Amino acid sequence: MESMIDVIGFDADDTLWHNESLYSLTQERFAELLSPYEHSESVYRKLFETETRNLKLFGYGIKGFTLSMIETAIELTRGEICGPDIQFIINYGKEMLASPVRPLDQVQTVLEELSTIYRLMLITKGDLFDQETKLARSGLASYFEIVEIVSEKTEMMYRDLLGKHGIEAERFLMAGNSLRSDILPVVAIGGHAVYIPYHITWQHETVGENKAVAADYHQIGHIGDLPDLMAKLDRRKRPNI
Amino acid sequence: MESMIDVIGFDADDTLWHNESLYSLTQERFAELLSPYEHSESVYRKLFETETRNLKLFGYGIKGFTLSMIETAIELTRGEICGPDIQFIINYGKEMLASPVRPLDQVQTVLEELSTIYRLMLITKGDLFDQETKLARSGLASYFEIVEIVSEKTEMMYRDLLGKHGIEAERFLMAGNSLRSDILPVVAIGGHAVYIPYHITWQHETVGENKAVAADYHQIGHIGDLPDLMAKLDRRKRPNI
Repeated sequence: MESMIDVIGFDADDTLWHNESLYSLTQERFAELLSPYEHSESVYRKLFETETRNLKLFGYGIKGFTLSMIETAIELTRGEICGPDIQFIINYGKEMLASPVRPLDQVQTVLEELSTIYRLMLITKGDLFDQETKLARSGLASYFEIVEIVSEKTEMMYRDLLGKHGIEAERFLMAGNSLRSDILPVVAIGGHAVYIPYHITWQHETVGENKAVAADYHQIGHIGDLPDLMAKLDRRKRPNI
Repeated sequence: MESMIDVIGFDADDTLWHNESLYSLTQERFAELLSPYEHSESVYRKLFETETRNLKLFGYGIKGFTLSMIETAIELTRGEICGPDIQFIINYGKEMLASPVRPLDQVQTVLEELSTIYRLMLITKGDLFDQETKLARSGLASYFEIVEIVSEKTEMMYRDLLGKHGIEAERFLMAGNSLRSDILPVVAIGGHAVYIPYHITWQHETVGENKAVAADYHQIGHIGDLPDLMAKLDRRKRPNI
């Protein structure tokens, strides 16, 4: 059966492997470290403010996150935080960078199955170096014909990327856990999208209900359901083949 | 006249625009900040040690450099450095990230001229986000048909990159200021290379004399001499055309 889709794009963090849980865990350790100075809720709020403010200079990724934790700690303690505690924070960042990459349940089977039918593309944002080593450590690299690490997932970026690889938007489907980065921009340029929520979403990636409801995309509860959905999509489009 | 070269690859930092001078300047400020504790020579040595040790976790770029400065400061002061001084270090990093991109002398004219004859490719390593914004700020982006930001410039990386874009190594020439990253690996895979030294080289990028002498590459004193060299290379190869 000929397929209506040629290429499936996959987000990586929290779509193929656990990521946000690593940030959450580190934030808890960070709040614990600052507990002599502030309640954890204020720590989380202040850290998010700092991250948001630094985003246009630092971009996404663990190194920027670590610098934002240090800056937050200095601000919240009014400069009283000591050298050794700052070193703890740097070590949190290093542990995140060296942390094992844990693929989500069924990811390998799904990629193995889909890669026999579709061209698979990995599209992820963040630190280039960090994402490359994560992909290598994940053991999933061989399923992807194309790997693209980008600084921001916007409509323009998706349009450029598809253009570069000669892929028509209507024959492209993107699967990911962020409405803001993986779903809405792809739908906006005429592509297909499957939203697979992860149990935690970074506040920065959330979008208003209205914006999301207006877009035409699919949603599944688990990446394990993707092969069935793909089969259905293909049947619906080409009933006579 | 048909050319023996189709594609010229350019390194970016210290080949197209000033970069290492920004790191040098920051290191001086950093040594000044730590002058109550240590002589500047020890500070430089210790910082280089820290950077080298962290390279496999942080990769290249300003954010990793900033984290290494903080770690060095904590170590050299035996944890006595105070919060406000750490904030100074973070601010050094932020100033580097926001610093104007200053193209080297004649770069624009040279790119303009060569882009009418050859396909130009930018091949740079470092933070994806940082390099992208630097290219945008440089005003040079439009001269490049291909932009590749990579985590490390090795023989394998060059081979993959040329393969991906369907470029034969013998019809590719790389111009850059690092023997280690821009010249030796390209020559090793059968490509051409032009070494254009910058007045400062980061210690990590230096290679032994012997290794460099054995390789067959061209050297010019200034990027302004590149068009003449290209014309000569083309004439030498095809004297009857």
